[in-house]
Amino acid sequence: MKFIIQRDRLVHSVQEVMKAVTSRTTIPILTGIKINTTTEGITLTGSDSDISIQSFIPAEEDGNEIVEVQTSGDIVLNARFFSEIVKKLPMDTVEIEVQTNFQTIIRSGKAEFNLNGLDPEEYPHLPIIEEANLFKLPTDLLKTLIRQTVFAVSTSETRPILTGVNLKVENDELTCIATDSHRLAMRTANIESKINGTYSVVIPGKSLNELSKILDDTNELIEIVITENQVLFKAKNLLFFSRLLEGNYPDTSRLIPTDSKTDVIVKTKELLQAIDRASLLAKENRNNVVKLLTHDGGVIEVSSNTPEVGKVVEEIVAEAIEGEELKISFSAKFVMDALKALEGTDIKISFTGAMRPFVICPLHDDRMLQLILPVRTY
Amino acid sequence: MKFIIQRDRLVHSVQEVMKAVTSRTTIPILTGIKINTTTEGITLTGSDSDISIQSFIPAEEDGNEIVEVQTSGDIVLNARFFSEIVKKLPMDTVEIEVQTNFQTIIRSGKAEFNLNGLDPEEYPHLPIIEEANLFKLPTDLLKTLIRQTVFAVSTSETRPILTGVNLKVENDELTCIATDSHRLAMRTANIESKINGTYSVVIPGKSLNELSKILDDTNELIEIVITENQVLFKAKNLLFFSRLLEGNYPDTSRLIPTDSKTDVIVKTKELLQAIDRASLLAKENRNNVVKLLTHDGGVIEVSSNTPEVGKVVEEIVAEAIEGEELKISFSAKFVMDALKALEGTDIKISFTGAMRPFVICPLHDDRMLQLILPVRTY
Repeated sequence: MKFIIQRDRLVHSVQEVMKAVTSRTTIPILTGIKINTTTEGITLTGSDSDISIQSFIPAEEDGNEIVEVQTSGDIVLNARFFSEIVKKLPMDTVEIEVQTNFQTIIRSGKAEFNLNGLDPEEYPHLPIIEEANLFKLPTDLLKTLIRQTVFAVSTSETRPILTGVNLKVENDELTCIATDSHRLAMRTANIESKINGTYSVVIPGKSLNELSKILDDTNELIEIVITENQVLFKAKNLLFFSRLLEGNYPDTSRLIPTDSKTDVIVKTKELLQAIDRASLLAKENRNNVVKLLTHDGGVIEVSSNTPEVGKVVEEIVAEAIEGEELKISFSAKFVMDALKALEGTDIKISFTGAMRPFVICPLHDDRMLQLILPVRTY
Repeated sequence: MKFIIQRDRLVHSVQEVMKAVTSRTTIPILTGIKINTTTEGITLTGSDSDISIQSFIPAEEDGNEIVEVQTSGDIVLNARFFSEIVKKLPMDTVEIEVQTNFQTIIRSGKAEFNLNGLDPEEYPHLPIIEEANLFKLPTDLLKTLIRQTVFAVSTSETRPILTGVNLKVENDELTCIATDSHRLAMRTANIESKINGTYSVVIPGKSLNELSKILDDTNELIEIVITENQVLFKAKNLLFFSRLLEGNYPDTSRLIPTDSKTDVIVKTKELLQAIDRASLLAKENRNNVVKLLTHDGGVIEVSSNTPEVGKVVEEIVAEAIEGEELKISFSAKFVMDALKALEGTDIKISFTGAMRPFVICPLHDDRMLQLILPVRTY
């Protein structure tokens, strides 16, 4: 195997596949990046067996030569060393050549590295995925769906299924749901292509976070293929595989209240900042609890009190308050996470009493919903 | 005590004095920031008993009112809570009012905090320093002196005196020296004002790092006052006190070789980058050791070799090589630290053999010197 490549393209692809490589693996070959060279170009693969990422660098693009392939072949190189080396090479091009015993020469300018490679035959094969049932949506929309839901997954392994995001496809609609059983985030969007049947799978939150990091903010379509135990995201020159979580995701639809006793419409930013300030003196508390009261005259009071430290009270003029008077306590963190995830300048909060979950939605958009359980303090 | 202040000025001063406050103190009052209010303005103080920082906010500046003092007085407020609160207040002005039992109201817009204060009588008094013998130098020059030496202090407490920078004043010259006994950094500069007698004190490296962070990059003069066990740095509206380390700093002058057997002149950046690359494959080694060889034809070879990982070799064309052929090994980290600290595009390295310390200087400047002990590998 021997090729010469533009260094910036190699650095970019190495950084992409590095997102899947962990040093904490018990499988030595997975500490490496696999490089496959054909006359078409170079394919890099990184994997931690949960996530696998493949990045392709074409030999030619828009009439420009990116890679000059001299001999085809495969090699696995230690990911940590290889990524640091390519980042620090002195020139704009790099020559990589595999010699006997997987010894690999990396040349750039007058710098020459000789890295001990690993046997590419030992590298696990990526799942072969039938693309019978793929659907598409704009990449930036997928990133938004992930951003608006993934923060609500559980970080505890007591119910492993809740560490993932439930992805449902039905009637040309994609719905993402995440919950840690104290709060729930849900977002629905249209998909671009017809799909046969319905799907409901659970993708690890960690996988979606990593995916989100390497996807560009573009409205180009990304393809999603779901199989029994894998999901594949296909973007330009990039394949992202993740295993699915096993088990049934709980039915969350019955958790969402359909009626409400108090409705508050308020500017997202004003409420977010007031809760942020109130939470400053609630830090020592379990769950970082703040209180919210409605007053006559369309005023909301946000407060917290930690006797050892002090207390804080702030009033906000709401856009509208309808229904019963309300006194409720909740986790400042959960409500701030929810408010940050929502789009739009105004939100509507629907309460059904101090001890019942409440729903936060953008004012004129029912495809996005955040549900939060209050905390009992009164 | 009651005053109204411009929030950005308060935030800035709180951040300055926070540099001296640590949450790990065993003295509860030192977890607080002391606020002293007079008709002249507000003085904030933070201290961890090694370092004390005082920041003054004048009531009026250039004809603009910064603080409206309504009642004078003192209070101590929890530094962590107070700094977070002032950062997040909603309006451009803040009202602070101390009530009975040190209860302190912080008001901004519709947000009102009620913070439990501490008794200001319990706050330790700052040292009273006689300003008989002060000297001055430009602030940015002081910052450069610190940057070029402080990295070389020892991080080990086996010889506590070496965790500080030796500051010597003699003949209107200031010299800073730091060594961890494997390397030494030295820098001399002229001071702006005559001083009686000579001084040699040792300032903790940590103090100088914190000082450097809060000083502006300005050529305004900073005043330095040295006493028996304290040093005081006086900048505009800012006092920075540090205790001195006790004990005698070792005489380092005899460590610096006066002759040399091999002199190499090379571009700083080229050598730095080549050593950086060579060190990539030396990471697993003790001390991160790389080798340097001189070749005929004015060429330097930088290399490293870790059999389990691989090896790297790079050649650099030197500006000049004079004297005996050389083969030497050294800590890549120490030489990179030294090269980063030096100014100028070209440096001269003077070697006196593979087992003797070598000296790195800017090409035409003998007021700046880095000395490094080699590592025995050949």
